[in-house]
This record gives sequence, structure tokens and C-alpha cells, in this order.
Amino acid sequence: MLDKVNHIAIAVPDMDEAKRQWGQKLGVKISAPLPQPEHGVTVIFIEMGDTKIELLEPLGEASPISRFLEQNPDGGMHHICFEVKDILAARDYLIEQGARILGDGTPKIGAHGKPVLFIHPKDVSGTLIELEQV
Amino acid sequence: MLDKVNHIAIAVPDMDEAKRQWGQKLGVKISAPLPQPEHGVTVIFIEMGDTKIELLEPLGEASPISRFLEQNPDGGMHHICFEVKDILAARDYLIEQGARILGDGTPKIGAHGKPVLFIHPKDVSGTLIELEQV
Repeated sequence: MLDKVNHIAIAVPDMDEAKRQWGQKLGVKISAPLPQPEHGVTVIFIEMGDTKIELLEPLGEASPISRFLEQNPDGGMHHICFEVKDILAARDYLIEQGARILGDGTPKIGAHGKPVLFIHPKDVSGTLIELEQV
Repeated sequence: MLDKVNHIAIAVPDMDEAKRQWGQKLGVKISAPLPQPEHGVTVIFIEMGDTKIELLEPLGEASPISRFLEQNPDGGMHHICFEVKDILAARDYLIEQGARILGDGTPKIGAHGKPVLFIHPKDVSGTLIELEQV
């Protein structure tokens, strides 16, 4: 059902500092920062093999990563995104297995323009997991 | 310098529960648990595309993930491992860029039998990063 890791999302408090840390200190190739006001974040993409690292900086007043950064002021790993072929079938399977889907269970259109949903971290080793239909 | 994501390590407080969560609730194929007493963990491997998820449960009295689990009792993402071709060249580049290597800077033999080192999380968005020479 889960095919591969689409990306690992890392929340960062300051994108300029993150650019120095990843682009200069680690020496990886980073994209230009992309503001996504509809998702409350600015994103830098880092291609790593067949997966990606996404650096997320809060954008606007109600960013979904603000609370995480209050608790983790240096930043940190926020979620892992797995690809699925059929997000409604995946959701129904997960609910049948007793997993809790965040929100009302309806997939939303995510930052890549594709349907996504999130599984409750308490159901998966304290790890926030996003599913994206590709 | 950093080629691809070798694995994403997730610390779990209870491997039996993690097996249910990942193997049953998420429906992914999990390996048998592999005790690695010399590294203070028991590991389950989950192949995902060209990367892996590794579930780590503490083993023994002085497990390197015990403190993380005290702070994150449900478990959580512990580190990301990137592959490098030459770990000494990578270390020297990182030090030159002002990044701090944990320990005395000498690569140790990691859980896959290959040389590894860790970069200080304060230098990389609060994220613990392992480098493994492959």
C-alpha cells in the first residue's frame, strides 16, 4: 500500500540559516525557497536519490508548523510522506486497522497539488505520517 | 558529497507494538527484529523504494536512544542517514565549514558494518544526521 518515501519534512525556524546549514555546511544542492501561502510554509526542496528532503519555514500567522517549532526551537524532523496509489483505499484500510486519520478523514490537496492525508502520530511510533496519492 | 538517504531511523519504546503499528496498521513489510547488542538497539528494517525505515528499540542498559525515548515516550524520528563515498573527506569538508562532528571525529563502525559518524543537530536544523560510507 505504501510505495516509497516521497519526502522527509524538516521544520526550520529561519530559512536563511537553513540555507547556510544545508547548502553550505552540508554542501547539498538546494532549490530556491518557494512560498506556499495556502499551506502556511515556505519550502526548499533537496533532491536525495529517489526521495526528497523538504525544509519548511513558517509563513503567515497560522502556520501548521508553528507549534512544532515552539516545542523544537532549533527545528527538527516534522513528518515523513509515503506515496500511495489510491488514497481513499489506503484511508479505508487504515481506518479498518484502527488507525486515526487527522481532520475529518477527507483528503486535502497538498503542497504538491495532489491529495494527501495525515495519520495520527500516536498510531505510528510517535511519527507524523503523510500519505500522498501520486 | 551526500548521495542519498540510506535510512530514516525511528526510535520506538516497544517493538511488539511497533510491529503491530507498522506491519499491521500501515500494512508494510517488516523484517524480523535483529538484536544488535554492540549498538544497544534491536532493529526492524522496512524497505521503502531505494531507502529504508529502521525501527530502533533500546537494548541493554546504556542504549544510545534511551534518553530520546524519555523525552519522546511514544517514539519518534531519531535521525536520518545519508550515504557518502569517502567519510574522511566528508568529515574534513564538514569541519572546514564549521560543522561539529559528535565524539572525537573518528568514524566508528556502524550497525551495517560500515564507517559512520554523526553531525551535531544544532548545526543542521535540529536534526541528527548520520553519514555512512558505502
